[in-house]
Amino acid sequence: MTLYAVIMAGGVGSRFWPQSREAHPKQYLNVFGDASLMQATLGRLSGLVPPERCFVVTNKSHVQKTQRQLPAVPAGNILAEPMRRNTAPCIAYAASRIAHIDPDATLVVLPADSVISDVERFHQALRTAAEAAQTTGRLVTLGVEPSRPETGYGYIEYDRSARLHAGHEHEAFQVKQFREKPDRETAQHFMEAGTFLWNSGMFVWRVGSVLDAFATHLPRVYDAFAPVRAGAHDPGTVEAGFEASPSVSVDYGIMEHAGDVAVVPVDFGWDDLGDWRAVYDLSPKDARGNALDADAVAVDSTNCLARTANGRYIALVGVDDLLVVDTPDALLVCHKDATQRIKTIVEQLRETHPGLV
Amino acid sequence: MTLYAVIMAGGVGSRFWPQSREAHPKQYLNVFGDASLMQATLGRLSGLVPPERCFVVTNKSHVQKTQRQLPAVPAGNILAEPMRRNTAPCIAYAASRIAHIDPDATLVVLPADSVISDVERFHQALRTAAEAAQTTGRLVTLGVEPSRPETGYGYIEYDRSARLHAGHEHEAFQVKQFREKPDRETAQHFMEAGTFLWNSGMFVWRVGSVLDAFATHLPRVYDAFAPVRAGAHDPGTVEAGFEASPSVSVDYGIMEHAGDVAVVPVDFGWDDLGDWRAVYDLSPKDARGNALDADAVAVDSTNCLARTANGRYIALVGVDDLLVVDTPDALLVCHKDATQRIKTIVEQLRETHPGLV
Repeated sequence: MTLYAVIMAGGVGSRFWPQSREAHPKQYLNVFGDASLMQATLGRLSGLVPPERCFVVTNKSHVQKTQRQLPAVPAGNILAEPMRRNTAPCIAYAASRIAHIDPDATLVVLPADSVISDVERFHQALRTAAEAAQTTGRLVTLGVEPSRPETGYGYIEYDRSARLHAGHEHEAFQVKQFREKPDRETAQHFMEAGTFLWNSGMFVWRVGSVLDAFATHLPRVYDAFAPVRAGAHDPGTVEAGFEASPSVSVDYGIMEHAGDVAVVPVDFGWDDLGDWRAVYDLSPKDARGNALDADAVAVDSTNCLARTANGRYIALVGVDDLLVVDTPDALLVCHKDATQRIKTIVEQLRETHPGLV
Repeated sequence: MTLYAVIMAGGVGSRFWPQSREAHPKQYLNVFGDASLMQATLGRLSGLVPPERCFVVTNKSHVQKTQRQLPAVPAGNILAEPMRRNTAPCIAYAASRIAHIDPDATLVVLPADSVISDVERFHQALRTAAEAAQTTGRLVTLGVEPSRPETGYGYIEYDRSARLHAGHEHEAFQVKQFREKPDRETAQHFMEAGTFLWNSGMFVWRVGSVLDAFATHLPRVYDAFAPVRAGAHDPGTVEAGFEASPSVSVDYGIMEHAGDVAVVPVDFGWDDLGDWRAVYDLSPKDARGNALDADAVAVDSTNCLARTANGRYIALVGVDDLLVVDTPDALLVCHKDATQRIKTIVEQLRETHPGLV
């Protein structure tokens, strides 16, 4: 069994404005420490998948940035998306390309912008999932054990009595159904039931299995990338493939319709880092709950995040629960409970100050 | 009667950090519109005291800045304080200098950093005070009718039955006593009594009267500036005068001891603009109570002040009652009720980041 990784880096991340911009999305940012989220995603595969077998799918405008950030990945492994078409065409493209290179490949598909705290358990879970994919031929997804009744994620219900595989301290189970983002009450019910997991967007499958699923459930997308499976890889061929594909997510287009899906419940400290509040939650804090950059200071203030830029100094006085993010040309001051409204600012700016988006 | 003005511009204004700095104190800032507070103070005297008879006392390090900001004032009228010695030596110096020029001068002494909304009533009050100073020979102070039980100001109690002068829609009364900054309960009592006024730091007196008062109550200060009264005005003479003077306020050193003080109650919309909250209070606001610069925007936010710098953009999201003041090298995010703690930041910075003070 030969593992390949597909890192999906097509996101925009307007919820990380003003640090993220269209030209510099979330996955390219150093949110923690010296590595960008994408560099951390690649680094986390070390010991499991070598860089030569790691592929990155990103918007064509970010190919050079990706090459600069990931010098260990061969340039030919950076796959350029000519347009946004959601995750299904993106995965069909990468799977078709890898199928041409190694028709027996087993693929690990990962978003470029997640945070994972326990890399050892992450590797264990992927090994379990890869074995399950290999032995059962099924599409396997990783489902995160919920730690709170989150309404911002989709859920996966599984059948605890239908264990398909075990090993490496993890197990794979038969999926019962995928569920859309729930309301608060439903999310609470999911928590209590104990058989619902967060849909993390991490998948493991044999390249042949996923292409068969495309042929069955999204034949237009499957057909669109036939030339790529035959070895064509010029920009015109790829663009035609995306042009011919509808915009659809792999969850909606494939996973919810395939009857033979497996899930590995995982608890390796996953976070999709959805917004600045998540960054605050995951940051080290001082005794008053503040997560401050070196050039920031707080007086009579609690539970704030302060991120400086270009050595500018930030002083917080008598404030609580604020996210303060400074950049050379724009500053955000946002209450921790209002991060969903940052998108509103970005939409306004697209009209009034396009240079800031 | 010939009126002269003395504008006292020696303040530091650390409560306006980060816009105010030691090298650029509050009175030199454009807090409202295109004029600095000091320029507005001079402009407000137009029609009452011509610039040739306006004198400014400021720290020696700010003389050039003062000349640049007040080109209508003769350079010789900018009096340099060689060191900080509070208001009594400052006034003794200016009075001694003007006494040499015109021994019959009547002086209007004004802080450089107040805001006054009704200039016509301001002129009326000064005319009344000047006449009272002229006819009674007393030291006259302007006392602001309190609009709230403010604990941040000293108060002046006056005797409503002892009217000394009337005219120009204002009256002058005998002062009973000066009172230090009160606690909340006492301030409430002062409000209700109706015979207490805020000590505004604005004075009117004949130059001979105030110099007599110095001779009686602060003879060391009086003697220190004898050479200035004799016409000497070189830096060495002035520095020796300040060196020989104790650091004492004119309120404590003169006004509280002089028995013959008068007060003119005034209501011309005075504000000493003590901090950013006062700036917010006096600023025009939108329907949600926000006072925002052109390059600032607020979503789901109320009652905030946002001041930008260098065209940087500020976005407020889901926040209330914040003062956000941006400068090229430092940013303040302060709750409106916490402005008194800004001094703490400035004191810390003096140790850690002296370039920001």
